[in-house]
Amino acid sequence: MTSLSQKSFVASQDFDALKDIVGEKGLMWPDGHGGDDFAVYETCVRYGAGKAAFVVRPANSKETSRVLAYCYGRGITLIPQSGNSGLVGASTPDSSGTQGVLSFDRLIRTSEMGTDSSDQIIFDEENRSVMVGAGVRLSDLNAFLEPKGYVFPIDLGADPRIGGMIATNTGGARFLRYGDVRQNTLGVKVVLADEAGTELDFMSGLRKDNTGIDWKHLFIGTTGVLGVVTEAVLNVVRLPQQSTAALLVPRDEAAVLKLLLEMEQRCDTNLTAFEGMSANAIRAAFDHVPSLRNPFPGGDVPDYVLLVELSRTWAKRESEQNLDELMEVVLAEIWEDEEAPLENAFIGRPEEMWALRHALSEGVKHAGKLVAFDVSFRRGDLMRFRAFMAQELPEKFPNVWICDFGHVGDGGLHFNLSIPQDDPRLNDTAFMPSLREWVVKIVVEKYNGSFSAEHAIGRSNQGFYDLYTPEKVKELAGKIKGALSPGELGDVKLG
Amino acid sequence: MTSLSQKSFVASQDFDALKDIVGEKGLMWPDGHGGDDFAVYETCVRYGAGKAAFVVRPANSKETSRVLAYCYGRGITLIPQSGNSGLVGASTPDSSGTQGVLSFDRLIRTSEMGTDSSDQIIFDEENRSVMVGAGVRLSDLNAFLEPKGYVFPIDLGADPRIGGMIATNTGGARFLRYGDVRQNTLGVKVVLADEAGTELDFMSGLRKDNTGIDWKHLFIGTTGVLGVVTEAVLNVVRLPQQSTAALLVPRDEAAVLKLLLEMEQRCDTNLTAFEGMSANAIRAAFDHVPSLRNPFPGGDVPDYVLLVELSRTWAKRESEQNLDELMEVVLAEIWEDEEAPLENAFIGRPEEMWALRHALSEGVKHAGKLVAFDVSFRRGDLMRFRAFMAQELPEKFPNVWICDFGHVGDGGLHFNLSIPQDDPRLNDTAFMPSLREWVVKIVVEKYNGSFSAEHAIGRSNQGFYDLYTPEKVKELAGKIKGALSPGELGDVKLG
Repeated sequence: MTSLSQKSFVASQDFDALKDIVGEKGLMWPDGHGGDDFAVYETCVRYGAGKAAFVVRPANSKETSRVLAYCYGRGITLIPQSGNSGLVGASTPDSSGTQGVLSFDRLIRTSEMGTDSSDQIIFDEENRSVMVGAGVRLSDLNAFLEPKGYVFPIDLGADPRIGGMIATNTGGARFLRYGDVRQNTLGVKVVLADEAGTELDFMSGLRKDNTGIDWKHLFIGTTGVLGVVTEAVLNVVRLPQQSTAALLVPRDEAAVLKLLLEMEQRCDTNLTAFEGMSANAIRAAFDHVPSLRNPFPGGDVPDYVLLVELSRTWAKRESEQNLDELMEVVLAEIWEDEEAPLENAFIGRPEEMWALRHALSEGVKHAGKLVAFDVSFRRGDLMRFRAFMAQELPEKFPNVWICDFGHVGDGGLHFNLSIPQDDPRLNDTAFMPSLREWVVKIVVEKYNGSFSAEHAIGRSNQGFYDLYTPEKVKELAGKIKGALSPGELGDVKLG
Repeated sequence: MTSLSQKSFVASQDFDALKDIVGEKGLMWPDGHGGDDFAVYETCVRYGAGKAAFVVRPANSKETSRVLAYCYGRGITLIPQSGNSGLVGASTPDSSGTQGVLSFDRLIRTSEMGTDSSDQIIFDEENRSVMVGAGVRLSDLNAFLEPKGYVFPIDLGADPRIGGMIATNTGGARFLRYGDVRQNTLGVKVVLADEAGTELDFMSGLRKDNTGIDWKHLFIGTTGVLGVVTEAVLNVVRLPQQSTAALLVPRDEAAVLKLLLEMEQRCDTNLTAFEGMSANAIRAAFDHVPSLRNPFPGGDVPDYVLLVELSRTWAKRESEQNLDELMEVVLAEIWEDEEAPLENAFIGRPEEMWALRHALSEGVKHAGKLVAFDVSFRRGDLMRFRAFMAQELPEKFPNVWICDFGHVGDGGLHFNLSIPQDDPRLNDTAFMPSLREWVVKIVVEKYNGSFSAEHAIGRSNQGFYDLYTPEKVKELAGKIKGALSPGELGDVKLG
């Protein structure tokens, strides 16, 4: 552990030493040695900018190991930074100017490749897996896989790098069918923040292996503070060759879960998405992206709309129904019941529906001052929480608009609130924290939900971690952190 | 930590103290206080019998906590024992007579129920999950779920209790479609072997939750040495309403993986099993169970046979092909290729095919002296390992017969060897260890495989854990064990 005085001391000798490890193009520091991009590494998507003492960009796991060992010895704090598209402020330095950024930019080849290999990805089709460096972007991985008929099935709006996806255990819109990053990670190579910069190799890529602790799970979802994942073996799946989507209008809020259970039974794993969208979020998307087609009769947006998707990995056979027909049959079956949970349904072009779904996020950002919560519930409680909020929020915080959307199929909810930009309460520094704390309290205490469903822990929600994690659990987390990576890694405190 | 002298001392005062916690029927000890069943708790399926100082059977998590705290204070080693159907000798005491068995027999209700509640299982249909005590048997859970149209999808030959399934992270025959216990565990309650007998509650049952370390993964698959799981929240799935199966004869060994990839693409997740069976294992099953029908022309068993299963959660619709037709269409598609990987195929009654598959295990047990290995590989390496062994084993160990079967779809292999019971080498105490060590060496060193795919670590494979786990990993495992459960829990040493 380092003292504050040590931490604040990063000197030119450190730059020389780090350059010896990563080379000229592997290190940047302020005052003319940073290049034009330096500020990019200091700035995160949602929570303002910090100030970096330097940015170090190792090209492989070995260099990462030497960087971590060096910084451990010097008591320098390193902030692991992957695609820097995270939403909780975990991947950028604080404002002290004493922390170094450990960028994954150049971690795009695995140890088995030469550094000048043209291949970035090792594909094992028989095992349906790939071996990649932590710096490979999701889009690059999928561009590599698609011609081969495969995909890494984590469907996100952003384009992160693999290391950050592992560190935050991202979920996304097709979790219902494919699970999260954790469920699709078969192995990792990890570097610890200790005296030796220990490299641990859990890269066998086996699907069944029960020989003691399954170590990868400690490093998945813990934002890099227990160790830096430099390489990974990932599960990949067959690219769907057929898909269809529908917008469903549930009879009422209670009908949403009934519809989910009906769809699951009647479509099994053909069901690849079951997403919920509030009227306010949909209207915000239409306002922000005028080219979006409004599919609702008379343009009247229903209170709540579900986007359901069916897909299959094979091309339609002559002897089979296509998926549009299956969707129609399934909806007709559901409708037969007099108390059908379904009020209306629109089958149309999947691209159009997904365009609407993907426009929600930007839409709500432009509808006013956005207060975003990434929460989750047992699936049934998601709609109960929404109903409670629709009732209580206007009384507690009038003139705050709910424009949520989310992953009903897995209980994840992007619970967004929007406040008019000219609202005088925005000038009151106590207002926003009190709103945040009230919402999270309801999520955690009333509904036993999570205050971070798929964005993990960073500076922005550290306070909630501290508040809602039992003392004993924090004590144990501290011991595990101390055992694995006693050095200063990341700015998140689990213990 | 306890000294040996402390460990060997279990006295009548301990029986009194434990009885105070668990009541008369919660404690048994030798010399007339054990009941007729006492030896059952001392004996494991595959690796002989030990000797217990006592058997303590707490009825809930609170009692478990008090038992662990007491035994921690007294330095008594407890061996957690669930259904005692494990195959690596992890659930029974050693021969010293100083270890107590911590039985899960009575852990059949969760903390939310009264101890005299008639319900043993809390079903949350909206969340597709159940909350159960660790002592509930798999068969009882499924008997509860089936009338509701659901199943806990871990398909095993044995009938373990849930706690043991979690402790060993069982996989089974439908892993390909449903994953292992880890992937179907949404939460656990766990009791630590520390001074307080700390109870940790990770029972929220959320599907998406990334708020620090995901603790359950430390307790899954580590045979109870890091803490005793007393309750769990499990994912359940819709019970299939249609299924079909076929026996496929691959053109040659290399064709097996091609067939797997073809089936995955053409059937997607309708494919729920892809199991491999060697001719020797099949013949052993026919010998042992004469009532099994031999489906092969002229009774000639092919060298290697695959059992593939398709299933769906919905009842066949009039407008759809049934699954038998789908299987025929898919096999015809594969056959179209001149270099089709398929030599022959038999579509028949799924029950008959599964009866054959499930008879393999008993069959090989009766074919001679069985030497069983539970190993796994990257999927492609499974067949390469088999080919290597077919070549090398007869030279290295003549007159030893390979009668393997396994889960080709996930790389898991029950690599069984059979030796004639009258073979004089069986009297040579060095023979069996040398055979075991040679096979495992090939698995781990040549093929980067696992020496314990789905049975976890126990006394029988502790030596391989010690040999093949890197020193640094063992050191870290020891620290984690010390942080979580410093007391003597289980007889497996991870660190």
